[in-house]
Amino acid sequence: MSKPPEPDSGQVRQDGSGRSNRFLHALRREPVDVTPIWIMRQAGRYLPEYRATRELAGSFLELMQTPELACEVTLQPVERFDLDAAILFSDILTVPDAMGLGLHFVEGEGPKFSRPVRTHADIERLAVPDPESSLWYVMDAVRLVRRELKGRVPLIGFAGSPWTLACYMIEGGGSRDFARVKALALDNPALMHKLLGVNAKAVATYLAAQAAAGAQALMIFDTWGGLLAPAMFLEFSQRYLGQIALLLRADPHACSVPLILFSKGANASLEALADTGCAALGVDWTLPIGEARRRVGEHVALQGNLDPAVMLASPDVIRREARRVLDDFGPYPGHVFNLGHGITPDVDPEHVSVLVEAVHACRATAGTAMRTAGNAT
Amino acid sequence: MSKPPEPDSGQVRQDGSGRSNRFLHALRREPVDVTPIWIMRQAGRYLPEYRATRELAGSFLELMQTPELACEVTLQPVERFDLDAAILFSDILTVPDAMGLGLHFVEGEGPKFSRPVRTHADIERLAVPDPESSLWYVMDAVRLVRRELKGRVPLIGFAGSPWTLACYMIEGGGSRDFARVKALALDNPALMHKLLGVNAKAVATYLAAQAAAGAQALMIFDTWGGLLAPAMFLEFSQRYLGQIALLLRADPHACSVPLILFSKGANASLEALADTGCAALGVDWTLPIGEARRRVGEHVALQGNLDPAVMLASPDVIRREARRVLDDFGPYPGHVFNLGHGITPDVDPEHVSVLVEAVHACRATAGTAMRTAGNAT
Repeated sequence: MSKPPEPDSGQVRQDGSGRSNRFLHALRREPVDVTPIWIMRQAGRYLPEYRATRELAGSFLELMQTPELACEVTLQPVERFDLDAAILFSDILTVPDAMGLGLHFVEGEGPKFSRPVRTHADIERLAVPDPESSLWYVMDAVRLVRRELKGRVPLIGFAGSPWTLACYMIEGGGSRDFARVKALALDNPALMHKLLGVNAKAVATYLAAQAAAGAQALMIFDTWGGLLAPAMFLEFSQRYLGQIALLLRADPHACSVPLILFSKGANASLEALADTGCAALGVDWTLPIGEARRRVGEHVALQGNLDPAVMLASPDVIRREARRVLDDFGPYPGHVFNLGHGITPDVDPEHVSVLVEAVHACRATAGTAMRTAGNAT
Repeated sequence: MSKPPEPDSGQVRQDGSGRSNRFLHALRREPVDVTPIWIMRQAGRYLPEYRATRELAGSFLELMQTPELACEVTLQPVERFDLDAAILFSDILTVPDAMGLGLHFVEGEGPKFSRPVRTHADIERLAVPDPESSLWYVMDAVRLVRRELKGRVPLIGFAGSPWTLACYMIEGGGSRDFARVKALALDNPALMHKLLGVNAKAVATYLAAQAAAGAQALMIFDTWGGLLAPAMFLEFSQRYLGQIALLLRADPHACSVPLILFSKGANASLEALADTGCAALGVDWTLPIGEARRRVGEHVALQGNLDPAVMLASPDVIRREARRVLDDFGPYPGHVFNLGHGITPDVDPEHVSVLVEAVHACRATAGTAMRTAGNAT
């Protein structure tokens, strides 16, 4: 397997040490000096500088669709904290929006589509969007962020999963349990597979374009995959994640870019997710990460899995719980520290500093000495 | 172990056949003629007769606190469908209400407490309520339902778990993730343990009183246990479920009444839940029930685990998915069929008939012949 494109800074080291290297080495299950960390929704409302830029933009949509502003908020957490990766500021629903569904946000209600997909004809009309034209603002933002990052840390591009996109596309917005969408999948699987097939091609095309524009890792958020019973998860979500992984491996730009899959709550299906050929799996906080490692750690790296609620506790508790996750994973290569879900708006930014320092401080322990030493799987 | 009190009908058979016997036999992992079924929230808004009685009562609280009306709605689903158990119509928050917290319901927002627990002094003031005085309406309803059921099917009494009650008692109402309560547990575990200790004694006393009044099985709903990381789940939920199980085994009325624990989403901790000494565990739909059986089926019966969304699909799909759950559990004793969560208000009652018939129809298959045959664990 060829190596991912290296950061353009002069600081690149082959031993996995240093802020610019740890994340990609960990994704390849290679030795690192300390466990790398980034945080889901790290560019978000808990940061006063984010709220200021958001205010300036006028709306979430305007913020996300203006490359200069998206770049600015992407960099904010990397400048404030010693994080080991940046993730593009964007939304999982850009692809269906580019398909013409009309994404907008209703205050207090979350994302909505003006033209949800309801009939066979609606689905027949869907086409795979060309990212450089319909999603130019994402591609421009990726290029801009890469330039502004100057190789400090790698940039993660991302998309929503085919199943999760389908949930919103059919429902027209959020739902507590997406029970109607599940019932449709059960009653008319052919129709659902048609929609998921289009979504999978669109997501693969979109992620490949992000890789071509400079994204150094790619992540798929399958936010609602865990709502499916395992048999349905295999049929309606995992299958299409596997298709995307395959399409990306055949792409000249994306083939060397590690792919991270995160199906929140689908803990019964970790083995099937690892079988897709992805580089890494996200793990929420309801499964001990040590158990996840024993189940699939020979095949993929793991990303997670601190309970986001811990970030509301005191600094001492944050340090203790971070250490618990690190110890649970153990002295093996292949761990990217993260929360088990996005950081919430009520977290004190100072607590993020505490967490990042706590994770990086493990350099000095016996466990990490073993971690640096290497391939002891 | 002594046997649970038998239904007062003359139809009792020791071979586990017949509507009045299957449920209790299955909970004891004894052979049954067909797999028994009941449905969480079977007395609920999807039934027009429920909506009529609820209208008459004026409010949910009035309905639940008037024994005659609570009895009426408890019996409605048993009269309409061939279900194998009745569950008392009540609410998981009756105990904190009896502690003086002031339970009320806000339209569209769910349960609220007027006087949430916030300080050490608030917790010091809490006392274990005497069920026959403070919760007389529940005790009267249990006695009335037992009389009206005339032994047709067993009656399940229930309570909320100490952890789940604590979530509402501290937060003062529902929450998406109860992150504040979790942070409090991390920051001040001593205070949380004080609260959970009182809750555990109160719940055990309440369940024992329901058994004395005639409940033939007892269930604890740990609705928010699955939001906890496994280590926190052990410390703040499972431990107290174990205390309750122990207290009930020492109670003259409850010692022979099977106890069912349902910690929704806590699938990483099934073994620890089985270790509490309960008779059965509820299993949500995100874990294959066959896998749950392989993990803990030698120690406990299992209740579940059809995805509630299936009830919105067509009758053919309902039959197929019911069969999938039955086949996945396999030809072993110890299965009580149920949904993996409560039935939703938008389900067509006719679909419940379809499900109940489908589950009972498995009598005629080879799989069920083996199931009737017995102890092949």
